[in-house]
Amino acid sequence: MLSRSTAILGVGLIGGSLARALRRAGACAEIVGCASTPAEVGEALELGVIDRGTTAVAAAVAGCDLVVLAVPVGAMRAVFAQLAPALGADTVVTDVGSVKGAVIADARAALAAHYRLFVPGHPVAGTERSGVQASFAALFDSQRVILTPTAETDRGAVDRVTAMWQAAGARVEEMDAGHHDEVLAATSHLPHVLAFALVEYLAGVQEAREVFRFAGGGFRDFTRIAASSAPLWCDIVFANRPAVLASLEGYDARLRVLTEALRRGDVDAVRALFERAGAARRTYARDADPPAVPGGSG
Amino acid sequence: MLSRSTAILGVGLIGGSLARALRRAGACAEIVGCASTPAEVGEALELGVIDRGTTAVAAAVAGCDLVVLAVPVGAMRAVFAQLAPALGADTVVTDVGSVKGAVIADARAALAAHYRLFVPGHPVAGTERSGVQASFAALFDSQRVILTPTAETDRGAVDRVTAMWQAAGARVEEMDAGHHDEVLAATSHLPHVLAFALVEYLAGVQEAREVFRFAGGGFRDFTRIAASSAPLWCDIVFANRPAVLASLEGYDARLRVLTEALRRGDVDAVRALFERAGAARRTYARDADPPAVPGGSG
Repeated sequence: MLSRSTAILGVGLIGGSLARALRRAGACAEIVGCASTPAEVGEALELGVIDRGTTAVAAAVAGCDLVVLAVPVGAMRAVFAQLAPALGADTVVTDVGSVKGAVIADARAALAAHYRLFVPGHPVAGTERSGVQASFAALFDSQRVILTPTAETDRGAVDRVTAMWQAAGARVEEMDAGHHDEVLAATSHLPHVLAFALVEYLAGVQEAREVFRFAGGGFRDFTRIAASSAPLWCDIVFANRPAVLASLEGYDARLRVLTEALRRGDVDAVRALFERAGAARRTYARDADPPAVPGGSG
Repeated sequence: MLSRSTAILGVGLIGGSLARALRRAGACAEIVGCASTPAEVGEALELGVIDRGTTAVAAAVAGCDLVVLAVPVGAMRAVFAQLAPALGADTVVTDVGSVKGAVIADARAALAAHYRLFVPGHPVAGTERSGVQASFAALFDSQRVILTPTAETDRGAVDRVTAMWQAAGARVEEMDAGHHDEVLAATSHLPHVLAFALVEYLAGVQEAREVFRFAGGGFRDFTRIAASSAPLWCDIVFANRPAVLASLEGYDARLRVLTEALRRGDVDAVRALFERAGAARRTYARDADPPAVPGGSG
């Protein structure tokens, strides 16, 4: 058994799905959930996602040998401060934040000597939905989890968190935290910002209602991530601001090159840019694709 | 029966799927396919998508009472010129181009007096795949087809093309061609340009391989359309250049407002923009969404 008692702080899409996946694997004797409101605790209990629940972080953590922070990135600092005094001497702590540098700084400040048992983590998985109702045990199956231990991190703690994610069905890799934040700025934070900006732009044009009415499947795919939680993503882009700004500037420069080529009628330049994109998309990303969904890029 | 003999010029994803859908409905006694190479004709025959096939436009059209141009937008002009002399007096002609103004101009120039029997059309459906192997009969089921007849268009011809698309499972609406091109610039052409630009940008960054390796489902959704045919989409954006440029400029202005807010640390402004996007996405686009695909926006 991986853990006698695991505390999951934040029982939303990610925390709830992790609880379900660990239960499916029989990896924990007991799962304790912590949520900000009694209603959320009640819902998680009712759905059978957790064994016990509370709204008090210290009470959730007391007696647990494994603690997972699954709260929005902007809430991590406050939760670390609340859990620190209640940790057992050997309790391993990990998180699921989409940004690692900012969370590591929060953990280092709050955990003091216990910091060596903190393993920064990020499951690269999710849907645009949120809340425990949206959680499901298969969310992490074959998905990547990136752990970003630092020089001080205890190796045994890393091994336990690795085993936890493997029990949940995921593939675990390790990476430097700064590198993680740059890569994720490009692959996740930038696309979210672009999708939010596109939908916000279209919502402001005169024919907004018609624009959305005649949207094909390609548009729906493209903008699905703009249905993600706005406060959560606002937290993320601010927690990773330098890397997100660098990506935005790099992208905008390419977009202006493309716009200028279109404006001056340079068909060859536009086609070459589209071809490079298509080739890269096919080369790098094909394997990870789910099957095509009918309904259109038209 | 809708048609005695229907010619489909271009038997790719759209033309092939239309042939399959019309056959499924028993709407045509015979379907004649035309493709640019004997190999493509052979493939369409082997798959049972068409009854007869040829590489010669005039031969395909001769004796048909209904003709559908399903070639890339950039090839329409040449195909109109080749088919014009072979049309029967009452043969109705339609097309599936994603841009209507440019195709209408091509048809008017080539068809002369027969232009009144040309019904400009656009099925808002597709996938990022192409070719007859990717075609399937259900592609248009419950999808929208927009017809953009002009003042000169014969009403009986519009009715026949409407009946054809209804037989293929689609919902048909009519719209002004100029309005169509503006709306589609926003919902389809702009997102494609942005996705091509994003993937091209990411393919050029130093960690390109890693960037794509750690891409979640949100990224895959967002960039799936960048796997679409580059030459086809290059044709489309040039055929609709003024509207695409206007959309690109409007979008880029919003993106720079967002980037500036992030740069100066204005959390409220960024969150408000994200919230407006999320609200619009949920309000306008929810109904059309397929179910969430596991695999992540993380």
